[in-house]
Amino acid sequence: MRSDHVKEIRHWLHERGLAGFIQPRNDEFLGEYVPESEARLAWLTGFTGSAGLAIVLADQAAVFSDGRYTIQLAEQTDPAIWQRLHMIETKPEAWLAAQVPQGARIGYDPWLMSANAVAAFSDAGVVMVPSDNPIDAFWQNRPAPPLAKAQPHPIQYAGESAAEKRTRIAATIAAGGADAALLTDPHAVAWLLNLRGGDLPHTPLALATALLRRDGSVLLFIEPEKIDAEVAAHLGAAVAVVPRNAMAQALGTLRGKRVVLDPATAPIRYTQMLGDMGAITVSGDDPCVLPRALKNPVEQDGARAAHRRDALAMTRFIAWFTREAPRGDLDELSAAAKLREFRAQAPEFRAESFSPISGAGEHGAVIHYSATPASNRPIKPNELYLIDSGGQYPDGTTDITRTLWTGPDAPPAEIIERYTRVLAGHIALARAIFPEGTTGPQLDALARARLWEVGLDFDHGTGHGVGSFLSVHEGPAGISRAGKPVPLQPGMILSDEPGFYQEGAYGIRIENLLLVRRCDKFSTPRRFLNFETLTLVPYDDRLIDVSLLDRPSQAWLADYQAQVRALIG
Amino acid sequence: MRSDHVKEIRHWLHERGLAGFIQPRNDEFLGEYVPESEARLAWLTGFTGSAGLAIVLADQAAVFSDGRYTIQLAEQTDPAIWQRLHMIETKPEAWLAAQVPQGARIGYDPWLMSANAVAAFSDAGVVMVPSDNPIDAFWQNRPAPPLAKAQPHPIQYAGESAAEKRTRIAATIAAGGADAALLTDPHAVAWLLNLRGGDLPHTPLALATALLRRDGSVLLFIEPEKIDAEVAAHLGAAVAVVPRNAMAQALGTLRGKRVVLDPATAPIRYTQMLGDMGAITVSGDDPCVLPRALKNPVEQDGARAAHRRDALAMTRFIAWFTREAPRGDLDELSAAAKLREFRAQAPEFRAESFSPISGAGEHGAVIHYSATPASNRPIKPNELYLIDSGGQYPDGTTDITRTLWTGPDAPPAEIIERYTRVLAGHIALARAIFPEGTTGPQLDALARARLWEVGLDFDHGTGHGVGSFLSVHEGPAGISRAGKPVPLQPGMILSDEPGFYQEGAYGIRIENLLLVRRCDKFSTPRRFLNFETLTLVPYDDRLIDVSLLDRPSQAWLADYQAQVRALIG
Repeated sequence: MRSDHVKEIRHWLHERGLAGFIQPRNDEFLGEYVPESEARLAWLTGFTGSAGLAIVLADQAAVFSDGRYTIQLAEQTDPAIWQRLHMIETKPEAWLAAQVPQGARIGYDPWLMSANAVAAFSDAGVVMVPSDNPIDAFWQNRPAPPLAKAQPHPIQYAGESAAEKRTRIAATIAAGGADAALLTDPHAVAWLLNLRGGDLPHTPLALATALLRRDGSVLLFIEPEKIDAEVAAHLGAAVAVVPRNAMAQALGTLRGKRVVLDPATAPIRYTQMLGDMGAITVSGDDPCVLPRALKNPVEQDGARAAHRRDALAMTRFIAWFTREAPRGDLDELSAAAKLREFRAQAPEFRAESFSPISGAGEHGAVIHYSATPASNRPIKPNELYLIDSGGQYPDGTTDITRTLWTGPDAPPAEIIERYTRVLAGHIALARAIFPEGTTGPQLDALARARLWEVGLDFDHGTGHGVGSFLSVHEGPAGISRAGKPVPLQPGMILSDEPGFYQEGAYGIRIENLLLVRRCDKFSTPRRFLNFETLTLVPYDDRLIDVSLLDRPSQAWLADYQAQVRALIG
Repeated sequence: MRSDHVKEIRHWLHERGLAGFIQPRNDEFLGEYVPESEARLAWLTGFTGSAGLAIVLADQAAVFSDGRYTIQLAEQTDPAIWQRLHMIETKPEAWLAAQVPQGARIGYDPWLMSANAVAAFSDAGVVMVPSDNPIDAFWQNRPAPPLAKAQPHPIQYAGESAAEKRTRIAATIAAGGADAALLTDPHAVAWLLNLRGGDLPHTPLALATALLRRDGSVLLFIEPEKIDAEVAAHLGAAVAVVPRNAMAQALGTLRGKRVVLDPATAPIRYTQMLGDMGAITVSGDDPCVLPRALKNPVEQDGARAAHRRDALAMTRFIAWFTREAPRGDLDELSAAAKLREFRAQAPEFRAESFSPISGAGEHGAVIHYSATPASNRPIKPNELYLIDSGGQYPDGTTDITRTLWTGPDAPPAEIIERYTRVLAGHIALARAIFPEGTTGPQLDALARARLWEVGLDFDHGTGHGVGSFLSVHEGPAGISRAGKPVPLQPGMILSDEPGFYQEGAYGIRIENLLLVRRCDKFSTPRRFLNFETLTLVPYDDRLIDVSLLDRPSQAWLADYQAQVRALIG
């Protein structure tokens, strides 16, 4: 009973003299996915979405998520216990400050919140009290933490050896006047050490953190059970494996040293720990974020190969779907399972890069819809079906969305018009040529202007970075209205995924991945960039009114279709 | 002799034990234009451009300006005395820090630098020492300060009484928990009190500052000679006129009060003065900036009327120019004078809103070119001529650029293609429809994409705000790559002025003013905005290749031309 869980927390609050406790969704790695053993928010509230936070007070409790999860949050949590709130509309710190007296003492787990997140609550007027996590004491039958074996990410996929990366990043740390950087993001560790693993369902991570010293040597904080002899040999002598529970002790050598830590992405516990050690914390960006985003030529070739492979699976799926759908015998779960089957036919397929969004009719308008046995819906004739999915391959990570018409009749004019406007924005971004220094937010309007001109828009970003056999969502660059103004640079891989959602009726989204590259066709003095489209999968022709596209976009579409035909044969 | 001026400063430095002195271009109002009596930078260096700063050290001296003034800076200053530097490429604080020892004492006039500007130097490692201004002691035959009579800005142009504005802005000050706001920008004072004047050549300002209290009463700091009985009656009993030299004394009443001051735009002297008084400085935006930018319906109608009037003058000028130019007898100064004549035929004409940019051939590529008797150049047959100008009328301020072909032959294909690409961007922005909350930087790429696609761009912002019988450059919104992300709101007037510049050959710029308005043609839930084009003056048809425009842009152009014909008759 979840109500018992909340009662246990309240009992604990009372014992500790605290007015409340904050439990975020994330684990100590502050990432998008958590293993079952770290699903504390789900244990407490029942909510399993990928973004959220609960606040338990003595006499009330609230659970927050964002617009992607409004429906799921309502379905999975008990309204008798929880106020269910939208964390953008009602900021958790503002809600909390309105419920408790100024200066109320609020407990939190310092492994689960960044310094920035804690500061937001402190600034709102409560006193934030770091503590142990009561859920860890109360959780019965808790799943064991994952201990999947780590794997080397071989040089034929990584394109640069871990030794070279360590030297390169250590040099930037030294140049910044620091002695070391604490890499608290497992993606940074995975990239730096050419290390992958199996601790999470969709991202091939070995959950670990690391200290990179200015001499290029590394302390790798990971359960030693994950490291076999092959991985140990791959890591080499400059990388010392330290059990995670011995981390504090190992960091004791940092007294008086300057250590880079990213206050936005590191749990505040590290700041406290470094302070206790007598180390000097230097706030700075994770030094691996930008280098990881700039795929080298080997990674770029890998991405192309992964996308060709993925395109074959997607194209087979679309052919199968186009044949089967008009009969009306499919449903969301079976269609997604079939797509997985097609992907799994490739020996290189490792996993889906996220849980696919397989939404028919009105479910297509739920931006992060996840079909469950309870929500699963037949895919009916003459409606739209949206499938957003991707694969993990050792040479690259894919992410693609296609919106398909089930037939057998022709789609209504309104749907054709709106699909074509989404496609026009998708093509306008894919075709863009722009000077060096241009940021994603500057390009975002290109993908929206054809919707705006008829009073429509979509409520999500246009594009996110994608890793190389790593996370399907990766910084630092993105293409959105209000994102960080990070200049796009050659080697970045970004999605191009405008959409349109008619709530309660249908959803349209069209997504390809784009590789930023130098545009060398001009002799003008300024340097320009453009995109290479990595994804080569047909669009549904029945949904396109070519006359709504301008001539350059028509030409782009014809060229794209020719490339797709050449690939599929 | 300017060298004597520098010697005098160096003698003063020696006496005071200072390593250097910083003299910016601006006066105590930190605005774009200064009266002759405040042209200290010109007295010191000879440079008369609208942006710049000089640093005099014991054994060297540097004068900085930006890319608009590279040529003018080189022509007007003596290389034997001055290093001439580009202030974006070489930041003055960085240059200074490299010349003097860490901790060197540098004098500055606290009336002439904002807190932010002083902090930039302090952060670079020098000790900033506020002092009197040595130029004020050494300047012989200094012009008298302007004492033009102030004028009421009547309600039929202002649309809202000063009493209503005072009440409205005082309420925002009180809502923010402050007792008063110190309005250090004369534009804020002019808007708030519906007051204009004649202290500057192009902006109808009475140079003044003011204290607005939370009860709506005002202390107006201005030379009493500027205020006659009519203006005193207009200001009313709630506005007390205080001579500027009695300001410090008058502010003595602020002990213990919370006073809003904008650290970006207020001279640091005010911060020091308020501190000396025992007042509490609250850093915040000038509370008049946004309200002033949102033109009310009366100001919007005034802008339309001013633009119709201005369009007649511009159209007559273009007809005259088109007739005369092929003969080759015109020059830049005479053409600009002729345009002024056409404008002055309207009885409502008050002044040019800035010194016109009248550039033929290669001078068109100098973005802020100013024709002087020395630089004046004939306007030859078969070349481009760029004219950027505007008028001040009591009902509105205009700003327009047209690029004209002199003939008699047809323009070369390259020029037609580039002109048309600039026009395509100009039209794309003018046609834009966008949701509420969209900022200028999000729209900037629309005006550039057709240049980018052939490897071209322009090195200035696409649009700036324009005042209502006030400054031709006004915040807070703008349309540029890296501007402040201020949402566009109904009532803002912004320029739309993309260009292309072939250095040493020709310049193209096309500028209209746009009024942001609600777009009510959709029944969709989201609220959208678009632009009304205020400027109604023909483009040069000979420079347009209509086939390079997409169909909606062709339709926009045809509609614009029809509106222009309907206006001109």
